[in-house]
Amino acid sequence: MNVNKNYKNLNESYLFSNIAKKVNDFALKNSDMEIIKLGIGDVTLPLCPAIIEALHNAVDEMARKETFKGYGPEQGYDFLKTSIQNYYKNFEVSLDLNEIFISDGAKSDLGNILDLFDKDNSCLVPDPVYPVYVDTNMMAGRRIIFIDANEENEFLPLPNEKIKADLIYICSPNNPTGAVYNKEQLKKWVDYALKNNSIILFDSAYESFIDDNNLPRSIYEIEGAKNCAIEFCSFSKTAGFTGTRCGYTIVPKELVFDNMSLNKMWLRRQTTKFNGVPYIVQKAAAAVFTEEGQKQIHENLNYYKQNAKVISGTLDKLNIKYTGGKNSPYIWLKCPNNMNSWDFFDLLLNKIGVVGTPGSGFGKNGENWFRLTSFNTLEKTQEAMERFYNLFK
Amino acid sequence: MNVNKNYKNLNESYLFSNIAKKVNDFALKNSDMEIIKLGIGDVTLPLCPAIIEALHNAVDEMARKETFKGYGPEQGYDFLKTSIQNYYKNFEVSLDLNEIFISDGAKSDLGNILDLFDKDNSCLVPDPVYPVYVDTNMMAGRRIIFIDANEENEFLPLPNEKIKADLIYICSPNNPTGAVYNKEQLKKWVDYALKNNSIILFDSAYESFIDDNNLPRSIYEIEGAKNCAIEFCSFSKTAGFTGTRCGYTIVPKELVFDNMSLNKMWLRRQTTKFNGVPYIVQKAAAAVFTEEGQKQIHENLNYYKQNAKVISGTLDKLNIKYTGGKNSPYIWLKCPNNMNSWDFFDLLLNKIGVVGTPGSGFGKNGENWFRLTSFNTLEKTQEAMERFYNLFK
Repeated sequence: MNVNKNYKNLNESYLFSNIAKKVNDFALKNSDMEIIKLGIGDVTLPLCPAIIEALHNAVDEMARKETFKGYGPEQGYDFLKTSIQNYYKNFEVSLDLNEIFISDGAKSDLGNILDLFDKDNSCLVPDPVYPVYVDTNMMAGRRIIFIDANEENEFLPLPNEKIKADLIYICSPNNPTGAVYNKEQLKKWVDYALKNNSIILFDSAYESFIDDNNLPRSIYEIEGAKNCAIEFCSFSKTAGFTGTRCGYTIVPKELVFDNMSLNKMWLRRQTTKFNGVPYIVQKAAAAVFTEEGQKQIHENLNYYKQNAKVISGTLDKLNIKYTGGKNSPYIWLKCPNNMNSWDFFDLLLNKIGVVGTPGSGFGKNGENWFRLTSFNTLEKTQEAMERFYNLFK
Repeated sequence: MNVNKNYKNLNESYLFSNIAKKVNDFALKNSDMEIIKLGIGDVTLPLCPAIIEALHNAVDEMARKETFKGYGPEQGYDFLKTSIQNYYKNFEVSLDLNEIFISDGAKSDLGNILDLFDKDNSCLVPDPVYPVYVDTNMMAGRRIIFIDANEENEFLPLPNEKIKADLIYICSPNNPTGAVYNKEQLKKWVDYALKNNSIILFDSAYESFIDDNNLPRSIYEIEGAKNCAIEFCSFSKTAGFTGTRCGYTIVPKELVFDNMSLNKMWLRRQTTKFNGVPYIVQKAAAAVFTEEGQKQIHENLNYYKQNAKVISGTLDKLNIKYTGGKNSPYIWLKCPNNMNSWDFFDLLLNKIGVVGTPGSGFGKNGENWFRLTSFNTLEKTQEAMERFYNLFK
């Protein structure tokens, strides 16, 4: 037996373990200072009452022979797919039920979708980037082409006709930069993909943070996208499902390459290598779309958005350049005085006990940049940003 | 973009859709006869009270900020891994916690584990077989070698030194045949794998149906297995989790090939392409291992085992040859009068309204064989087998 040797080419990321080590060392020596973590990439508010109630009810169904659920459809129950179908009507996107696949999260499907593509396909990823796009393709031995996302293009790179790629990763609102493509910009990517026979893998995990109604929340708001794009979304940040695990993937039936329907291929992949999301979790996800559920998740989203405003407002006052903060839970700031990312990390930690994430951990173009997130409490975010203001004022 | 062309070589299985069509047609014309389904491959008893209680408690934890759980470790929480570690001590198998990976079911991991192996590896599967072993390898373009499981070897094929293979699938107790390898037989496979540098992918999803203490419930009861085998197990049939989704995969740290640790590779795969099993589901799975949980799941298992006895007892009285029925929820019988599988299916349906699964649907060696399962109610199983007895006596 020979192993998949592509795994030898994977880099280990020590980003978060290095951060944890520095924070621990500091905490041991400075027990008097409260450390505030604005590097959290996970939700912190509990599940909403409507979701909790749906979970309890579904658990009770599993306790009675008459309502017990065994194997469900691998692609998800219609009750949840119908809710998602209706949700997309809010953006004037019309989907067939069989174009919607319920997943255990965007991360799983973003990795597993690669099963459908030839190993010789190239893929295009922006730098800085969510590392999963790179690693999943390295595992398959694919050629990766990086394009620069930087201050010049406001971290929203546009297609370059000289660079050809088969698979194109777009995350908007972006992790880590918080930058959001507008419709005109996204249209350029769709046109490029259509022209070059490429597939866009569109990660919309943060779409619910978009407040500006002119910004696209789904790539299918762009004409032609159903012929070139697969969309991945998740309840993780929308409804606090990071530990509850549910998302969805849209594979339009228009996607036919080499006489093969990607929709049918994905159904075949999922029915062969997946057994669906737990019934109780699908009932919880459906509760997100009820009137009560929508009201409650938006209260939580507004809480995080308020934190983002506290951070971006401080940066505005200090004239520090950043992207995100609006329409995104992430704030991506340029380190003052052109400091490098790790020096800035050390400065914030050592001077004011505030923890963020060095931008260089997301790729070379992240150097001199820094990520803050809006997932801590309002009180702690305010306290952290007061300390931040006093340090740089 | 080019698609993965291996998908073009996949066969569509019409086995269960053909069965459904025949049953529907019959039902329309014979509304007076109660159809009894002994083809069910899914549990039917609800989740046990101890599991339900654990689910409700975990849901309540998700409702409070202080106990809410976001992202968990991709490989599973230690509280569940420790329970599994202790469970294996019952078979005198000692595991490190980091050799245990919590999954959303054996099917997912049986498919995804193939990421770790070179595309040029060959794989060995018995015929008849659970179709997932074949399809997942076809998707990767691997060469598949079938070995005969038949009446002669009692559906328990042993290694043939002339046939070399890199990946070897063993399911024991077997789906669909119900046959179970003893320790001496399994030792032959372990020795073969060690000699040929092969990996055994051991599917133990039905281990909890084993009553005979001399039969191995884990391949690691066999000396040398930690150097050549990965084990896949599931709570689906053990504790009725087919709709709740949890299982576990054991990747021993001794598995090192090409200087690569399969354990570390699998951790890398899972942390990159998976985000773990829902917290509430892991709490439910942990409840399976409590004293109360064990007592309650065994009441359910005994119920199914009693059904199996009703079926096998009838076949004994009729002198019809079968495998399984003991130590397995499946009964694999030789069609009387050497009928072919579909003719026998039609006979049972049309004469007595009993539905089973034609053996030929699982491979060429399944021809003239037929699968019955023990997942219906005791009353219906008894009624079906009375009709069966009267037809063949």
